[in-house]
Amino acid sequence: MRVLILGGDGYLGWPTAMQFSARGDEVTVVDNFAKRQWELEEGIEPVVPIPTLHRRIARWQEVTGKTIRMRVGDLCNHRFVYTLLEETRPDAIVHYAEQPSAPYSMQSRGTAVYTQTNNLVGTLNLLFGIRRHCPGVHLVKLGTMGEYGTPNIDIEEGYLTVTHNGRTDTLPFPKQPGSFYHLSKVHDSHNIAFACRIWGLAATDLNQGVVYGIETAETRLDAGLRTSFHYDHVFGTVLNRFLVQAAVGSPLTVYGKGGQTRGFLNLVDTLQCIDLAVRHPAKGGEFRVFNQFTEQFSVMDLAEKVCAAGRRAGLAVSIEHLPNPRIEAETHYYNPRHSRLVDLGLQPHLLTDRVIDDLLASVRPHAGRVDPGAFRPKIRWAADTRV
Amino acid sequence: MRVLILGGDGYLGWPTAMQFSARGDEVTVVDNFAKRQWELEEGIEPVVPIPTLHRRIARWQEVTGKTIRMRVGDLCNHRFVYTLLEETRPDAIVHYAEQPSAPYSMQSRGTAVYTQTNNLVGTLNLLFGIRRHCPGVHLVKLGTMGEYGTPNIDIEEGYLTVTHNGRTDTLPFPKQPGSFYHLSKVHDSHNIAFACRIWGLAATDLNQGVVYGIETAETRLDAGLRTSFHYDHVFGTVLNRFLVQAAVGSPLTVYGKGGQTRGFLNLVDTLQCIDLAVRHPAKGGEFRVFNQFTEQFSVMDLAEKVCAAGRRAGLAVSIEHLPNPRIEAETHYYNPRHSRLVDLGLQPHLLTDRVIDDLLASVRPHAGRVDPGAFRPKIRWAADTRV
Repeated sequence: MRVLILGGDGYLGWPTAMQFSARGDEVTVVDNFAKRQWELEEGIEPVVPIPTLHRRIARWQEVTGKTIRMRVGDLCNHRFVYTLLEETRPDAIVHYAEQPSAPYSMQSRGTAVYTQTNNLVGTLNLLFGIRRHCPGVHLVKLGTMGEYGTPNIDIEEGYLTVTHNGRTDTLPFPKQPGSFYHLSKVHDSHNIAFACRIWGLAATDLNQGVVYGIETAETRLDAGLRTSFHYDHVFGTVLNRFLVQAAVGSPLTVYGKGGQTRGFLNLVDTLQCIDLAVRHPAKGGEFRVFNQFTEQFSVMDLAEKVCAAGRRAGLAVSIEHLPNPRIEAETHYYNPRHSRLVDLGLQPHLLTDRVIDDLLASVRPHAGRVDPGAFRPKIRWAADTRV
Repeated sequence: MRVLILGGDGYLGWPTAMQFSARGDEVTVVDNFAKRQWELEEGIEPVVPIPTLHRRIARWQEVTGKTIRMRVGDLCNHRFVYTLLEETRPDAIVHYAEQPSAPYSMQSRGTAVYTQTNNLVGTLNLLFGIRRHCPGVHLVKLGTMGEYGTPNIDIEEGYLTVTHNGRTDTLPFPKQPGSFYHLSKVHDSHNIAFACRIWGLAATDLNQGVVYGIETAETRLDAGLRTSFHYDHVFGTVLNRFLVQAAVGSPLTVYGKGGQTRGFLNLVDTLQCIDLAVRHPAKGGEFRVFNQFTEQFSVMDLAEKVCAAGRRAGLAVSIEHLPNPRIEAETHYYNPRHSRLVDLGLQPHLLTDRVIDDLLASVRPHAGRVDPGAFRPKIRWAADTRV
């Protein structure tokens, strides 16, 4: 099948592209390299230098004999989007092409507005482009579990059946997102649901948990096929940051009490979930929502697991509680459903001691390149945000 | 008190400004006259020519001796917003300054994207500006009852208390908006709720029903103080359109079966609600939601009331069912709460026969200026939308 990967230069986009290509699909990746610009703005780098997308695609061809096509452009340019869809006629579109960092969105008025307009306009252009050029395509859109916040009830997968004053309806699950970035994903979800309803488009919204890991079957083929791995305070996700902190002997930085509980999944399971969603498409008119994670942990659970892995590896690892730069509940109820991808066949790779040991081993060779100054949070949700 | 009216050139903004000024408040109106540009794009005009805002403010001064200040600028320019707030130091901000038409937002990709970016960015700039320059101000933001859609349960005022699997929480009421315009208001509501939560801002979101009427106590003072009244397919609301159709002998254009039920209120009650919200402000950190309408009708109910009023006035009025240009349920459950403004003291002006007769009489003198071509809907939600 023809698969379009939007945001194909990124942490998740590039391994996704390789996976589909490896399985024989016709893959086109799209990127405008905006993420690399944001990295420059923040003065941060991935733990391993990542070759240009052009060079990685060439290397993929050398290593596997397979071709990944590339289009360079910005989804906010609708003429680019329309031409892209008209010329590639995809069967499935995997849409990662958004500003993905909550801290980035919270650092100033400018980045808040940029995040929301960039993410919304790109997705709106895509919806109108699909409507015009490939209305039968299946749109697989990356959302986040952070859209839900931490309500005091079980979180369902996208919808909630409510009985109220004796009447019942199934309604979109109420959202309480925790940053301008998370808000942008909630806005997207409302826009996409509407497009499915009025135009008959087919979409799957994947409310993804926090991803960890650096390797996939395809990145292991060659050092030139690595994906972008961040450990910094802007783009680094919590477990990845802890692993790098352990590798370099810095304390694990826990925000506040560390009771914040979230859904997590291994990078290889992200790929598996995307594959399952694409192979089992939504129907026309359907706005389908899956909660995409495999298990849940509190931040302290993870810190303790990484401490233990460090001890097993002979590293001295400590935990440092920092004032929480975010405004969020540090102890709360959390029980989100995540069965729909399992129903489609997801085989989770859980976070066993063995897996953590392997993750830690995979980041240790890069310890010499790490900038410990990038660990410390510099962007606060509250009073001292630059406006 | 110092009151800032954003969108002060508009149908609701101008009468609101006069009301506060009449009561002795210090009023500053803000507009960029974007609505007048949209009218030119669509080739439509209000039923009565409306003098420039400058001339209306001058006339207000001549008639009442009172001063309304004016700032011309665009909320999407954050430097304008920051300077405005720094210099005016308002106690309350009434925010009407958004693209307010569902059909306008649905006519093309360009107008959908414009509506969402214009409305979101203006409101985000306002939130950041408030945070910086007047964090204690009370923001009164106009939303719409259309944010809720037509769920099969009672609609509460902004929040829903849900018991699910034995646990209970009060969550934002799930939204099912019916156009890119209505979606923009849902996005705004999420953004404002977040700003209240993390920065302690105080806001009231008024989910307003469909407004009808042309006169207020202040517009009646002088012909030069009239407000902008639309009867066309883009900016005209249903009852206002029916009244003009009756006045000129055109059939009342009912979309589909006309079973669509909505909340309605008289223009004078909009002013009363705004006044009540401003005089009883939200607290810091509070995101308060009121459903702002006084009674509900189906579209056919209204058509029949206008037919009857026409007969009483000696006019031959008929009803024409047109294919519905929107995608919406034409028969549905509808029972929204609207008690919080009544609790604050709202005295509704209901749609009695006498009121309809007066409304019809107020539009009849302008019948000679009406363009009957502007009645017919030209923008469809479905297949033939220009993209």
